[in-house]
Formats: sequence, C-alpha cells, structure tokens
Amino acid sequence: MDGQRRPGAMGTGTGMGRRRFGPSLPLLVWTALCLGGGALGADNGLARTPVMGWLHWERFLCNIDCRSDPHNCISERLYMQMADVMAAEGWKEAGYEYVCIDDCWLAPTRDSQHRLQADPQRFPGGIKRLADYVHSKGLKLGIYQDVGTHTCAGYPGSLGHYQLDADTFAQWGVDLLKFDGCNFITLDQLIDGYRNMSVALNQTGRHIVYSCEWPFYLWPYVQPNYTDIRIHCNQWRNYGDISDSWGSLAYIIDWTADHQSMLVPAAGPGGWNDPDMLIIGNFGLSMDQQVTQMALWAIMAAPLLMSNDLRLIDPRSKSLLQNRYVIAINQDPLGVQGQRISKQGHFQLWSRPLSGGGFAYAVVNRAEIGGPQRFSVVMFGLDEGKACQERCLVTQILPTFQFRGIKALTSVVDLWVNPTGTVLFTVFPHSPQPQPQVQVQGQHRPRQHGSRL
Amino acid sequence: MDGQRRPGAMGTGTGMGRRRFGPSLPLLVWTALCLGGGALGADNGLARTPVMGWLHWERFLCNIDCRSDPHNCISERLYMQMADVMAAEGWKEAGYEYVCIDDCWLAPTRDSQHRLQADPQRFPGGIKRLADYVHSKGLKLGIYQDVGTHTCAGYPGSLGHYQLDADTFAQWGVDLLKFDGCNFITLDQLIDGYRNMSVALNQTGRHIVYSCEWPFYLWPYVQPNYTDIRIHCNQWRNYGDISDSWGSLAYIIDWTADHQSMLVPAAGPGGWNDPDMLIIGNFGLSMDQQVTQMALWAIMAAPLLMSNDLRLIDPRSKSLLQNRYVIAINQDPLGVQGQRISKQGHFQLWSRPLSGGGFAYAVVNRAEIGGPQRFSVVMFGLDEGKACQERCLVTQILPTFQFRGIKALTSVVDLWVNPTGTVLFTVFPHSPQPQPQVQVQGQHRPRQHGSRL
Repeated sequence: MDGQRRPGAMGTGTGMGRRRFGPSLPLLVWTALCLGGGALGADNGLARTPVMGWLHWERFLCNIDCRSDPHNCISERLYMQMADVMAAEGWKEAGYEYVCIDDCWLAPTRDSQHRLQADPQRFPGGIKRLADYVHSKGLKLGIYQDVGTHTCAGYPGSLGHYQLDADTFAQWGVDLLKFDGCNFITLDQLIDGYRNMSVALNQTGRHIVYSCEWPFYLWPYVQPNYTDIRIHCNQWRNYGDISDSWGSLAYIIDWTADHQSMLVPAAGPGGWNDPDMLIIGNFGLSMDQQVTQMALWAIMAAPLLMSNDLRLIDPRSKSLLQNRYVIAINQDPLGVQGQRISKQGHFQLWSRPLSGGGFAYAVVNRAEIGGPQRFSVVMFGLDEGKACQERCLVTQILPTFQFRGIKALTSVVDLWVNPTGTVLFTVFPHSPQPQPQVQVQGQHRPRQHGSRL
Repeated sequence: MDGQRRPGAMGTGTGMGRRRFGPSLPLLVWTALCLGGGALGADNGLARTPVMGWLHWERFLCNIDCRSDPHNCISERLYMQMADVMAAEGWKEAGYEYVCIDDCWLAPTRDSQHRLQADPQRFPGGIKRLADYVHSKGLKLGIYQDVGTHTCAGYPGSLGHYQLDADTFAQWGVDLLKFDGCNFITLDQLIDGYRNMSVALNQTGRHIVYSCEWPFYLWPYVQPNYTDIRIHCNQWRNYGDISDSWGSLAYIIDWTADHQSMLVPAAGPGGWNDPDMLIIGNFGLSMDQQVTQMALWAIMAAPLLMSNDLRLIDPRSKSLLQNRYVIAINQDPLGVQGQRISKQGHFQLWSRPLSGGGFAYAVVNRAEIGGPQRFSVVMFGLDEGKACQERCLVTQILPTFQFRGIKALTSVVDLWVNPTGTVLFTVFPHSPQPQPQVQVQGQHRPRQHGSRL
C-alpha cells in the first residue's frame, strides 16, 4: 500500500520557499496524522524505512591523533576500512548501507572560495574520492555539519553557507547529512537554519538523507513543533548523545516512553525519531543489554546507525546486529513507531503494529538484580485482543529464535526475561491454509536496501 | 613471615569475655596498625587470606517459590547442585571453597526448644545433612543469621539466642556465618550483638568464619570503630548490597577509595573489608566490567564470594573467575589491602603490595564512551620508584595474560584500557639469575585452600 518511490522528484524544487511534503504515507498513518493534526512526511523519497548504517561518533569521537593512533583516528582510512568490512562481512546484505562521518573531518578553515574542505592530512584524497570508494563497495557516504557558526568540536559551521555547503556535498557525492545544532545564534536562526538546509539539499538535485538534531536543541527552551520538523527532516534526534552504558540506554528508553504521545505520531515513512546510535559491540553493555537495545530500536522504528569497530567486533554482537528477523521488524513497511503499552513491576511491555496484521512485542525486565523473571503473556491482553483475534502464530525473536506455536485468544505464553534483558516476539494472524505461514516468514525477511534508492 | 596457623586455638576460650586477637600479622601490617592505633586481627585461625566461595543472595534473592521455580528456589537442592558443580568443574581447585546460604532458609518459627530450624519443605534433610553433603565434596558450608529480632526477610533473628544459635550451627557442621544487621533494637544492642556472636562462635570449638555487616549498619549513625570490628570479625561489609549493574560496582569502587585511609589499615590476615559478592557471570556487566570487578577485588584483598549460577555460567566469565594469576594476587599471603594511588582524567591507578617485593597494579578507565585509551606507565612513578628499583619484570594479568618484559626504572609501558575496563599487571624485582623468575611465577599460583584449614 505504500513504498511508491518518486525518482526525479528531487531537484525540481522551485526555490527556497519549496517545502518537502508528500502523499506517499500509508493510508493508516496518513489518517492518524490528519486526525491528530500531525505533519506529512519529508518527501525526498528517502528513508521510507529507517536508515541503516554506521556512524563514527560514539566509538571514535574526535580522535584526530593519527600519528600515535593511526588505526582509530578520524581519517579517510577509517571509513574505507569500515566500508571494506561492511561490504565483505554481511553488513551490506543485512541492510546496513550508510558509512557516516561525524564531527572532526574538517580543515580548520574554508578554502579561498569559502568552500568546506576536509583536513588535508587525514583526508588526503578529499571527500569526493572517499565517496567514490564507498560507492564502489555498493554503499553510501554520510557526512556531518552544523547549523551554527561552528561544529560542536569547533570546526567551521554552515551558518551563512547552507546552499554552498549543500552543493559541495552533492558535488562530492554525499548521500546523507547529519546536521548538528551547536553554536546557533538564536532559536529563530536555529529553526530557520534547519529549514533552509533542508531546502538547500533539495535544491541540489541529489538524494541526500537529512538527519537533524533540531528538537534536541529546542527542548531546553521550547517544545519542538514536530509537524514542522517532520516536513523538513528524514530523522531527528530528541535528546543528547548516547554513551556506552546501560544508564544512558535506559534513560533514552524512558525518555522516549515518557514523550511517546508526541513522538509516535510524528514518525512514519520518510521521517523518524532518532534515539541515537547502536552501541552494540562496544564495552559498556552486557549481552542482555545489547539485546534490549536491538529489540527496542526495532520497536521504536529507529534508524540503525551502529557506532562500533566492525573490524574487531565480537561474534555474538555481530550476530545480534545482523539478525534478519529483528531488522525486518525495524524495517517493517507499515512504518508505525511502537510504544510502551504497560508497566508491571519491573516489566515494561512495548508494542509495534506491523504490516500483514501482525504485532511485535518487547518485554523488558528493568530489574538490576536477581535471575530471570517470568512474564506471562495472556493473548487477549495484547492490544485489547487485536493481536490474536482468533488463532495466531507466536514467534520469539530475541534473545533466541523460537517458534512458540499457534495460540488462541485465551492462551498464555510464559516468557523468562533476564535482568536488564528483553524478550522480543511477534504475533501474526494464523489461518489453517499453509499460505499465511509462508507470508509471516516472508515478512521477517529484511528488505533489500540496495533496491530502495 | 606469616601464615603460622594455630590449630587448636579454637574452643579454648575462657568465656564471654575472651576476645579474639593474635600476633600472626605480617610485620609490616603489625607496625602500621600499631602506629596508626589500629587493631589486631581476629584470631580464630581462619580467613588468613580472603574467603573464597559462593553465596546465593544477589542471584537468587529470597525466591522461595519451589513449586513454580524448583530449579532456582532457595532449597537444599540449590546448594547441593552448586556444590556438585564447584567440585566437578574446577572451582574447588581454583580456591572456591565455601557454599553459602543467605537469607530465607529458615522456617517461620524456632522449634519447641527454641532452636533454629530450616524450612521443612525446602530443606527436608535439614542443614546437618546438607553440610555433610557439602563436606563430602571437599567443600564447606556457610549459613546466614541476623543480630536483631528478625532477619532482613522477616525470619526469626538471633537476638536473645546467640549462644544457642552458634551451638546449633556448630552441631550442624556449619563453617561460616554471615551475620546480618537488620531489625536491631539500639546501636548498643547491635554492637554488643556482633561482639557476643563472635564470642559465642568461638565458644563452640568449631572453626566458623564470622562475616559481619556491623560497620554498614553503623555508618548512617556513627563512624564505625574498625579496631573493635576487626577484633571480632573475619570480614565485614561497609555498605549496602551490590546489585547486578555497573552503577552499583562503580559506586562500591568509589566508596572504597574515598574511605581507604580508614579501611586499608583495618585489613589483614584474619580480617578483611568485604565489598560484597562477585556478580561476574550474571546479566548486568559487560565483559570489560567483569574484568574490572575481578581486578579490583584482587587489589582490594576482598573475599571472593560469587553470586551467580555456576550451572549455566558463560565460559568467558568462568575463565575470568578461575584465573589463577588474579586469584594469586587476591590471596597474596602478605595480606595488605591495596588502594587507589592516583586519578588522571578518566583513569584510576590502584596499587597493592605483594609478598616477594612485588606489586600489583590496576589501571581502570572510568570513561563510558569512545574506544580504548592509552595509559602510559612510567616505572619510576610507581609507588615512588619502589616497584621497579633496578630491573623488574612486568606481567599483564588482565584482560589477557602477557609478559611485558624486563624493565628499568626509566622504562615506559603503554597500556590500552577499554572504557569501563581495567588492565591488571604485576611488577616484581628481577635479578639476572633464573631463580627469581621461577619464584615470580610461583607467587602467581593460587594457594591451595584445601590445606589451610
């Protein structure tokens, strides 16, 4: 019912006043948004499902010391190596497509024609050559800039140069822009800057995913207008950077749930809430906590931008990140963000409607002590009985894959959930014909990103 | 210079007024304690090195629901299974010896002769038979009671029955008592209770390690008298229960460092500060964080009481817990507790003097973001040059074993430390003869616990 992409829609804008909007949302979402006074999606044809890829920040930060740490510093080598691994070790096939640069790639000054330039020591081939290299691997390149006078790390910002910078990125062959919000002048400048860069990217005629931090920088002062944000951005950060800890992850999960009445209606094909990078495969999360992040990011229809070292990653983390069933939930074409539907003691139950009449559920055990705890799911209690109206097929996806069988409305399924861990499962309608079961499995298969753009 | 055990010293007390004390501390510690007005060690001949074993609380809590969770409820079966695994899978050989019951083993009331009795459903054979079983595996049994009217979970406390309960434990063949401090009447009653149970245990004539929570319950009201505590207890908890999280672990590490001027002089053979259970092998810690706990517990000369499920434990966690080099540091016969000697940015450097003129060091990276960070160790900066006075042998113990070579006073050793992780290494004097190297390795070998008692 959706997914009609509109190639050629880019680059036909009529000027700075042109806004991105479009009719290509699923009917359900469209209706919900209209009823709720919500916005229409950014209509650059991109991010019809949440973006998947890799972003350097959480793991590599602003490490520019290539002399003593050449393996990990922010340089073209890092992105080329990451692209090599992504193409060679199953990441691309799993759907991870964007290799994204964050802050600290820039030279300290613009060139004589005011154009941005990459640091010449660390990016001797420039961004164009790096983009060509990444494209040669069948992947896409993301880059970073800032709406204000300087980036967060103090490099030249885009203020006053939005169209020039957008054109430069397009000429280089960039496919995604993460646009930060440090060092803005006024709130009006911040908001206008985010809008104007959206228009500028549109003007270039190149398909460039637009990743904003607009609401995050507004929250301390005013409540963001998610209608406006969704019109202009393909994804948007709502709060500060994630760090490599359970505390950070738990905070983001709670913040999202506490604001879900505002966030969920804003999300849909073309525009997504961004709870920040996947930190799976790093140092601060236990395996159970990594499962929780992967499960919740799927329920939340979040961009899947890993920030880790794919050259060294633990096999269990790799397997989790490449889990095709979880990715299929994340990338479900219905494009409805899930939400927390109940809290029972230490347990949280999250629900996301899927295409084909199915639902994904995550049961999170927020206890930080003891052993696995039982959570009994009564089928008629799931989404007021909508999930299993007659007979349904229950499939556990995480922490391990397991068919749980065909259930009726009155069935009870016992789940054992580890402290700080999550059980992720799906419920699909079941009819006696063999066809629907095949269909269910098909819906679990990750979509091929390569064919999307 | 130490380690003279005094078999037969137990059970010869002259009555309630007898205090435990002894001359068996290493000379250095003895001198330090005298100079600092410190106490002498509990002289029941036990815990000459920190106790090693397993304790049910953090992992199994007060789960008494044996009908629906027979595998994990507090019952004789749990301790028997844990003893089986400890005897069969290398735990006993590594030094883990005490299988310890925590709260919730008791029947709701005492028997007609006021004696404690185990819950008859969950311990149908009683504690005596359980102790016999554990002993038959070459292991020892620990039990739990409380200084006040009731245990923390509400079972009958020992108040008014100290000698009777001590005698009961001795008759059953119990080898360790964890004595909690919930539900005390007054601070004087609490303090007297801890003293009196110490005397009562001594009176029984049985070797029973005495594990106290005395200072923990005093801290909210008054500063504990560690001299007094050390005279009566083999180990003592200073703060609340550990939970299965990095936050809890980091808090305990910081608390210990912040109070180390008081805690370190109190520790030594026979009496130890107890930072609570090892939570390695559970759900809340990443592998790096598990390494940090193991390393710091070795530096802190802490009791090694695992609270996990040895029947199911991850092989990497098992390997870490059984690491003979780390255990050798923990069990070093010099018996001096280490401490934090510097903070540099996110790094903490901890040091512990070892027998044979060596030192153990832990470098903790407390950052919760980014990748591995370099920490450069200059040999002459370690303990004011005492660790490597001429030539020394540097050996990395965690996260992986690695000979780092023979170093001089001016040498620099670069360590890369993961966020929330730790590098643990030793520095031993090196002379050109082959003998000392052999000696160094010998010092890394865990002591045979079976021969201690």
